Amino acid sequence: MSLWLSGIGVSRGIAIGRVHRIHATDLDIPEYEIAADALDAEVQRFEEGLTRTREQLETIRDQIPANAPPEIAAFIETHLLMLEDSALSDTVAKLIREHHCNAEWALKLQQDHLVAVFDQMDDAYLRTRRDDVVHVTARLQRVLLKEERHIEARREANREPPVIVADDLTPADIIILHQQGVGAFISEHGGPLSHSAILARSLRIPAIVGMHAARRLLLDDETVVVDGEAGHVLAAPDAEAIEFYRHRQKRDQRYRRMLGKLKGEPAITADGVPIRLLANVELPDDSADAAEVGADGIGLYRTEFLYMNREDMPSEEEQLAAYRRVLRSVDGPVTIRTLDLGADKTLGQGRDPAQSTNPALGLRAIRLCLKETDMFRVQLRALLRASAEGDVRVMLPMISNTQELKQTRHLIGETMNQLRAEGHAFNSALPVGAMIEVPAAALSAPLLARHADFFSLGTNDLIQYTLAMDRVDDEINYLYDPLHPAVLRLIKLTIEAGEQAPIPVSMCGEMASDRRYTRLLLGLGLTEFSMHPASILEVKQLIMQSNVAALREQVDAMLACGDADEFREHLDALDEPAPA
Amino acid sequence: MSLWLSGIGVSRGIAIGRVHRIHATDLDIPEYEIAADALDAEVQRFEEGLTRTREQLETIRDQIPANAPPEIAAFIETHLLMLEDSALSDTVAKLIREHHCNAEWALKLQQDHLVAVFDQMDDAYLRTRRDDVVHVTARLQRVLLKEERHIEARREANREPPVIVADDLTPADIIILHQQGVGAFISEHGGPLSHSAILARSLRIPAIVGMHAARRLLLDDETVVVDGEAGHVLAAPDAEAIEFYRHRQKRDQRYRRMLGKLKGEPAITADGVPIRLLANVELPDDSADAAEVGADGIGLYRTEFLYMNREDMPSEEEQLAAYRRVLRSVDGPVTIRTLDLGADKTLGQGRDPAQSTNPALGLRAIRLCLKETDMFRVQLRALLRASAEGDVRVMLPMISNTQELKQTRHLIGETMNQLRAEGHAFNSALPVGAMIEVPAAALSAPLLARHADFFSLGTNDLIQYTLAMDRVDDEINYLYDPLHPAVLRLIKLTIEAGEQAPIPVSMCGEMASDRRYTRLLLGLGLTEFSMHPASILEVKQLIMQSNVAALREQVDAMLACGDADEFREHLDALDEPAPA
Repeated sequence: MSLWLSGIGVSRGIAIGRVHRIHATDLDIPEYEIAADALDAEVQRFEEGLTRTREQLETIRDQIPANAPPEIAAFIETHLLMLEDSALSDTVAKLIREHHCNAEWALKLQQDHLVAVFDQMDDAYLRTRRDDVVHVTARLQRVLLKEERHIEARREANREPPVIVADDLTPADIIILHQQGVGAFISEHGGPLSHSAILARSLRIPAIVGMHAARRLLLDDETVVVDGEAGHVLAAPDAEAIEFYRHRQKRDQRYRRMLGKLKGEPAITADGVPIRLLANVELPDDSADAAEVGADGIGLYRTEFLYMNREDMPSEEEQLAAYRRVLRSVDGPVTIRTLDLGADKTLGQGRDPAQSTNPALGLRAIRLCLKETDMFRVQLRALLRASAEGDVRVMLPMISNTQELKQTRHLIGETMNQLRAEGHAFNSALPVGAMIEVPAAALSAPLLARHADFFSLGTNDLIQYTLAMDRVDDEINYLYDPLHPAVLRLIKLTIEAGEQAPIPVSMCGEMASDRRYTRLLLGLGLTEFSMHPASILEVKQLIMQSNVAALREQVDAMLACGDADEFREHLDALDEPAPA
Repeated sequence: MSLWLSGIGVSRGIAIGRVHRIHATDLDIPEYEIAADALDAEVQRFEEGLTRTREQLETIRDQIPANAPPEIAAFIETHLLMLEDSALSDTVAKLIREHHCNAEWALKLQQDHLVAVFDQMDDAYLRTRRDDVVHVTARLQRVLLKEERHIEARREANREPPVIVADDLTPADIIILHQQGVGAFISEHGGPLSHSAILARSLRIPAIVGMHAARRLLLDDETVVVDGEAGHVLAAPDAEAIEFYRHRQKRDQRYRRMLGKLKGEPAITADGVPIRLLANVELPDDSADAAEVGADGIGLYRTEFLYMNREDMPSEEEQLAAYRRVLRSVDGPVTIRTLDLGADKTLGQGRDPAQSTNPALGLRAIRLCLKETDMFRVQLRALLRASAEGDVRVMLPMISNTQELKQTRHLIGETMNQLRAEGHAFNSALPVGAMIEVPAAALSAPLLARHADFFSLGTNDLIQYTLAMDRVDDEINYLYDPLHPAVLRLIKLTIEAGEQAPIPVSMCGEMASDRRYTRLLLGLGLTEFSMHPASILEVKQLIMQSNVAALREQVDAMLACGDADEFREHLDALDEPAPA
């Protein structure tokens, strides 16, 4: 009897292989007192642990083939940088001395603190950076406890490749297992935005996360089919099923080869409408990936990392250096989003995270910046100075009324006067745009358009606020629906307001990178998409096959219809091949 | 030199008087162990304290003149009921025995627990019921600690009345001070929905809350002018200012007398459009107030109180009895809202309130009911059985898509079959309506209208979700704006969808009770207003003076205009006297 299991598909592709379960040993962190005269030795033991962990990661990094995509090494570099960060090294040493406790316990205290900070993030992507903290500290704990984990799942000659079934996988695990020739990854935990998921996509290894109880239901060495797009696993497949999936596997391989050829092609629809494909980046070095796939520029550069896991605020020079690195690494515009953190997340400010019952509805993003103007002015100075050296655009998160735009423009004007007096160069026509991610902003887009140079639809938050649901809340995430008629209407309103103003409208939420929505968005009139570089070629391929004029008619008819079921039918019809 | 201070005006009217500050003595709650053989005596001491507190409140209640509005005694009754509630009496006695602690400490533990429950409420009105817990337990603590407070601020002959300036005032304080002839209340804390504020309005005593530092800035015996509408206090007024305010005082008195005459008049606009004025009630006994002012029925009956502060769930019979009491006390329809609590608030369910980062965006209201169907079915049975005895309408909170309406209707159908089999009577055409309080619901109102018998606009939540802000969060409540163009557009969309369906659309949020918005709402096409009974006559007076046809034209022009400043001008123009 075949058995179907479901999870969240995070890396497309079909794999047929045999199950190899990895059983995590839960770490039991001991707590004991260190005598005053032994504290130096304990700190030294901790530092030796750091060194050994660093060596492990460097060894893994050195195994990465030279022709591998750049983000693979970047993820290991991120973990290496975390080991060097004072939030791990100095703080833990300080905790050992303060609490007279063992290194493992001090590390646990600091890990709990860092994880709590990440758990409060609003940005779903940044929140997944919590996993990096967990992965790096777990590796360090294993070194300290001398319980190092060795993963071994080598592909045997003339046998199906191993399909790894694990609790959770770190980026380092993925790299090691990739070297060993595994066929697919299945993990019980983790999310689609985790670095491990991104890595699996980069390595083109099918992967499924959130498949609860997978280690209980799948048995070692049994044959399974993994469908990384649908998020399904078929255990004990019959000969017919295997034949079916082998055929799909071959078709997918042809598709990949075809995508690779699209890198140099312009993104123009079948009926001649040029579309801009921009990249979302997080760290300055990510922009290399954007250049690699031929992105037309950066549509979202997140600046939160400059502010996190530190006691002080980043200086103007520090920010300027980060912005310069991005500007130098890509052609085209670089859209930099100003600080998008909540009051509960700016560390070192002595704030109490518990004071806000609903942080997502609280003092955050532009609201916080307009309150803490001293902090905001430093970022504006850095942005303006960077604008002298390239095509910088400033994007303001969580705008909900015209007043916030006017106030920000006033602050920018004051900052320009200061910089002029100090003899600094800047672009006096610096474009300033608004994120459209609050329902009020979409509904009053024609008013906001008078004070903004561009709009960028942040669909992740827009969907959450419009449906009054927090996607991170497991109990109600079934409500998350990018296709809710209310959401589509708000997207349409925003794009129309942009066309009338006229100002450019782009979309930087996840919806823009999901090829299930590409035709729908073209039909809604979207002409600028910003997404993770890994999705750009797939979206480009669909764009090149689409006829915008026809799609716009179809989508207009869809939005006008009053029946929910009819609405879904129209949506399905969009995915049929468009006339050339 | 005159000094202006600002707070939140919660009870209209002008008072000219002299400051009388009441300094709160902070209670210092001791904690000590009670020996096992002294536990009975400690519980007895606690029970004696309960008795003495009850006697105090009864004395206060007995001082209320027979002709006073019924809600005045009701507030004291509420506090008396709380003293009898097992959540206070039995639970505290149990805590004394379990913890071997003194009565004051056990009371403090239970107070902390109850306050935490109320602090997590989503409904702004229910959340203010926290104050009742604090007020009652503080009175009981003072009795136990023998630190009883005696408020004395008698009006002296031929002198201006006292203006009370306090930290916070309980309903009982207000009644006692009213007996003594005070002229106005100013408190540093409290909100517009607190029972104390409602009481001040009922007693027609000007009151201002949230005037921070009032006790530091105002001096005993100095003369002040209190403007309870604007929320201003003018200290050390000159002769001209006093003259100006004496004139306003007289004009206001004339206005009050005129309102009293409107009780029996029908609410019809100057151009002949009949408007329904319904009442919002919380406890079954509140409906007496609704009848008193001639409300056309109940537009919102909250059922949360049936579920709160108890370990078990209310039985079908218990709910039926509560619904029957409301049905018997009013003429016209009774619109009963199904449970509007979050998962974090249904006590006795062993849930962890901390698990949801943003409870306002989580599992609550209809979402919770459709998950906990066993609990929901009990309420549906009670509602259906009540529908056999009067004009019951069922209103579903927090609807965000058609699926939720369909699922609820399916459950109601199943419940009807059960009741029919059991021989219970019910209204098989029971009207089932949707609260429109999530932006997605307003935006997809034409779709929802196909599955709903009526809509009720819950503006409090609608505004908060549309602007992505939590009004209870002090740091961003400046963003709360019922006049944001986005909010008005959603109200308009909902009313239009209702007209086209056609199904009735009412509004039960605070906006409906605020006479600053009455003309605007008429112009948006609203024909049913539901509000606290205390506001009905004022709104009726404005309605009778308004010309709906002219207002609709004005509001349409206003919504079409693209400029925010122009928009505000249009709004101001609405308040000019309408042509007859």
